[in-house]
Amino acid sequence: MALPISPLAPPSLPVLPPIKGVRLASHACGIRYPDRADLLLAEFVQGTAVGGVLTKSLTASAPVDLCRANLKGGKARVLVVNAGNANAFTGQRGITAVEATVGGAVRAFACKRNEVFVSSTGTIGVPLPVDKIVAAIPKAQAALKEDAWTDAAKAIMTTDTFTKTATRSATIDGVPVSINGICKGSGMIAPDMATLLAYVFTDAALEAPAVQTLITAGAAKSFNCVTVDGDTSTSDTLLMFATGLAKHRFVSSAVDPRLTEFRAKLDELLIDLAKQVARDGEGASKFVEIRLTGADNDLAARRIAMSIANSPLVKTAVAGEDANWGRIVMAVGKAGEKANRDRLAITIGGVIVARAGEAVPDYDEQPVTAHMQGREIIIEVDVGIGRGAATVWTCDLTHGYIDINGSYRT
Amino acid sequence: MALPISPLAPPSLPVLPPIKGVRLASHACGIRYPDRADLLLAEFVQGTAVGGVLTKSLTASAPVDLCRANLKGGKARVLVVNAGNANAFTGQRGITAVEATVGGAVRAFACKRNEVFVSSTGTIGVPLPVDKIVAAIPKAQAALKEDAWTDAAKAIMTTDTFTKTATRSATIDGVPVSINGICKGSGMIAPDMATLLAYVFTDAALEAPAVQTLITAGAAKSFNCVTVDGDTSTSDTLLMFATGLAKHRFVSSAVDPRLTEFRAKLDELLIDLAKQVARDGEGASKFVEIRLTGADNDLAARRIAMSIANSPLVKTAVAGEDANWGRIVMAVGKAGEKANRDRLAITIGGVIVARAGEAVPDYDEQPVTAHMQGREIIIEVDVGIGRGAATVWTCDLTHGYIDINGSYRT
Repeated sequence: MALPISPLAPPSLPVLPPIKGVRLASHACGIRYPDRADLLLAEFVQGTAVGGVLTKSLTASAPVDLCRANLKGGKARVLVVNAGNANAFTGQRGITAVEATVGGAVRAFACKRNEVFVSSTGTIGVPLPVDKIVAAIPKAQAALKEDAWTDAAKAIMTTDTFTKTATRSATIDGVPVSINGICKGSGMIAPDMATLLAYVFTDAALEAPAVQTLITAGAAKSFNCVTVDGDTSTSDTLLMFATGLAKHRFVSSAVDPRLTEFRAKLDELLIDLAKQVARDGEGASKFVEIRLTGADNDLAARRIAMSIANSPLVKTAVAGEDANWGRIVMAVGKAGEKANRDRLAITIGGVIVARAGEAVPDYDEQPVTAHMQGREIIIEVDVGIGRGAATVWTCDLTHGYIDINGSYRT
Repeated sequence: MALPISPLAPPSLPVLPPIKGVRLASHACGIRYPDRADLLLAEFVQGTAVGGVLTKSLTASAPVDLCRANLKGGKARVLVVNAGNANAFTGQRGITAVEATVGGAVRAFACKRNEVFVSSTGTIGVPLPVDKIVAAIPKAQAALKEDAWTDAAKAIMTTDTFTKTATRSATIDGVPVSINGICKGSGMIAPDMATLLAYVFTDAALEAPAVQTLITAGAAKSFNCVTVDGDTSTSDTLLMFATGLAKHRFVSSAVDPRLTEFRAKLDELLIDLAKQVARDGEGASKFVEIRLTGADNDLAARRIAMSIANSPLVKTAVAGEDANWGRIVMAVGKAGEKANRDRLAITIGGVIVARAGEAVPDYDEQPVTAHMQGREIIIEVDVGIGRGAATVWTCDLTHGYIDINGSYRT
């Protein structure tokens, strides 16, 4: 299925630098897609620390179960990701397939079983042709290199229409470190459940508990604030690998003041990737940022913002370039969090359209209409209760979403 | 906007008998729609008892606030409903408009203010041209008659493509009584928040607390089990009027054994109306019944069933006639209620396609495909935990939904 590239795609791909201690390769296994790489293999230097956030789905896939177990060890040597088949809801065969993949990685890299991380993305409920993956591991191993970031990001795509990468640099104790990220995801995206597939790589020297805390906090501000359709995958996985080869002293705590800049840059990178996911929402024609203020607390703010972001009526209105703020009122009302109807204020594209419980009389529709006709829609809502705030990102709901999802398997 | 009639519409309209003590009229006020009636006026005999369920939206409309206040009195003489403008998020002007409508009804019918019930449905945030309604009340009053049910149901329609009515008869103490219902709604429909606009009329002699209990219990099994898009209106209203003119002794308790048949018939009528709403879901091409079993309890079952029913990925798969049960697994997993991945079983159109945590090997796809190509889709899911069960109704998500909602205001 060749989809046109999202009109919201970034104009160019960033150039990702090598990360000391990380080598990557992609390979065409033929799991589902003809004529493209569908396997990502990443090798990490001995001693690499790992942390991660995984889907809260109660029907999580076998690879997610493996990652959850292996995160306890906090060490990583190998990551194997395939696209085209999620190996989810595949029963005992799914578990066996993950074990076979781990076995293949252990043989190739002479690492421990709990240092191998596996992800699968694609169709649910179809047995994974794991033999193809096991056979591919040594071949991909022979091709490992330090600068294969774009190919790596391409190999994990499913319905994505563009490659999602990001990079940032920071200093720790005066020593420069790099952070690279790749991710995939354009449908079945929802908050509060880790996210799609996303991998972050850094040469910073961090103890595993620090990595875990950093990535959990970062996810809350980024991937957990993005939604396409409110649906949550059985496979959502965000992993962060820190090779420790940067020449500063090891940092054991995420709140260490030496990490101030690193934390900020990591959060920035995660938000960058998360926004790219919303920009590639299946069928998206407009990127929507919802800035919610005046809620009882930040969590309430995010819930209300998500209620707006997930409302099919709001999303179709945006698609129709209709500043139908009445539907925003509706979505605030159904969110189940405190809101003061008679103090509610709504601003679209910088123009206040509703205030104090009713439409602003004779507001100038022209700039609002022009804003709705653009690609980047900004909706600000104040619910008039307290100081809770949150920003979330989503896209509109268009015919393209129906086209893509009405025929995904066929 | 003339929409084609839903392909899921019932083949014919039932004939509703007169209800002793109820007279109806519709009138064209020109609020929004040219050339059609957009006002329903109903008059009830003195002593009519009323009960109701209203939206839980925190941005409820001014008419909903009025109904909530007047339900406390338990008596009704007049119902005024307009279509085309929801009088929601209209601030002080909205409250004034409701008061003006009540004043008009009081003058015309010489009743008490708290015996008047008002509903408005349509666009949010636009001031209601209430003068048109007040002027129409005496005109409609002059036209009141006992057999105007179909016209009444037509007058309250917005994006509905067919008229929704239902009727049942029962006996109380051997005395025959009738129950009629009318409703409207095809988008912005979600559970747990009363529902759209629905009105039930009976000549049964019931005290107001009994009416209230009956309608609350009935709503839980009917309108709260139907969803189109997970969106909840600011105006959802379900009211039941009991004129008391049937010649049996007054019943004061909803659990009185004399009401056994009446309760069953009332529930049947409410489910009938609720299903009609799903059948008229905006853009619907298929009616979907989801039967959920094996949950921890009935509430958990309804939540999981609703998670499936509201999933855009499930709904688009149904539209695409794709038996993509992997998405059902996903929706079970994200519902947040207990489910055993390895005991989950899914049946589509009577054919078990997944069992014990994986696809049934080599199940016969042909009857499943044939079922998906039909108009009525039945999905059964057992989540393998306990005895909780629920049935919910929805429709598919099609291009039609986008067409209708991308251009509602324009």
